[in-house]
Amino acid sequence: MSSPVKEPLCTWRGKVAHDWVDYNGHLRDAYYMVIFSFASDGLMDLIGMDAQGRQTTGHTLYTLETHLSYLLEVKEGADVEVFTHIVGLDAKRLHLCHGLYLQGGAALLAANEQMLINIDSARARSAPFAAQAGERLRALAQPHLALPRPSYAGRSIALAPPKLVTPHG
Amino acid sequence: MSSPVKEPLCTWRGKVAHDWVDYNGHLRDAYYMVIFSFASDGLMDLIGMDAQGRQTTGHTLYTLETHLSYLLEVKEGADVEVFTHIVGLDAKRLHLCHGLYLQGGAALLAANEQMLINIDSARARSAPFAAQAGERLRALAQPHLALPRPSYAGRSIALAPPKLVTPHG
Repeated sequence: MSSPVKEPLCTWRGKVAHDWVDYNGHLRDAYYMVIFSFASDGLMDLIGMDAQGRQTTGHTLYTLETHLSYLLEVKEGADVEVFTHIVGLDAKRLHLCHGLYLQGGAALLAANEQMLINIDSARARSAPFAAQAGERLRALAQPHLALPRPSYAGRSIALAPPKLVTPHG
Repeated sequence: MSSPVKEPLCTWRGKVAHDWVDYNGHLRDAYYMVIFSFASDGLMDLIGMDAQGRQTTGHTLYTLETHLSYLLEVKEGADVEVFTHIVGLDAKRLHLCHGLYLQGGAALLAANEQMLINIDSARARSAPFAAQAGERLRALAQPHLALPRPSYAGRSIALAPPKLVTPHG
């Protein structure tokens, strides 16, 4: 199964905090999303939409929709990193896939898809990306868009239809 | 657009905490998921899978996959509640839709879909629901399964194809 591309875009590195784990010492489902939210902040920093950039332009990004597939358990204290694949981009929307890994590891721990929209805060309305952010996004996206689309993009959730039990099944 | 059913299953009530909001005082994207995770805990309590029940049976629920649609901003201190619609159930999997509302409010603030699986912790493998949990789930699910499916169930994320600009558009 193809995973989010591991090069070149690492958007977050850190340690699984005590407050993020459940009674079993495993990362609690919602805190995978906290990590992926930090990764989106990391991408914003890379395109000049850090706190200073947001103040200068009055623009920020809102999350419209997100989809998360949990693949492996992650323990308290684990050193993890997120790699990000831009899978779509238009004048004001950004569609990306984050993948969570142990630092230096190859196994995909969780896959997160996000659709983000650029917002002009003063007007509280969506607006095209500011010039610098748009340019940087296009530059980052270009090699990504040529890569195979991550298999976790575009999933929907469903119970499979019941399996037929054959006489010799 | 049809929303998750508001009756009869309230699974969480509480207040948007200071730690959950961003620099604008709005609930941060990942913390919607924290609230929905608490709502899944609330459902577990309702079916006897609280801490004591988990200890007795050795069973717990893992989240396999989740999908969240952000519809409206939520402010620090807001009193909110989650209503839950069971949209699918088999021997060991539970498919549900949570809806977030202001307490007593009609507007859907966010919609979250989850696929959960029953786990036998001792064997660290999936297993059919224990008898009590399975019975309670079937009883809760029966009226829900007869209702219209929430419109947010089964969504996938995609950028719409670019709109054609007509000469008179």
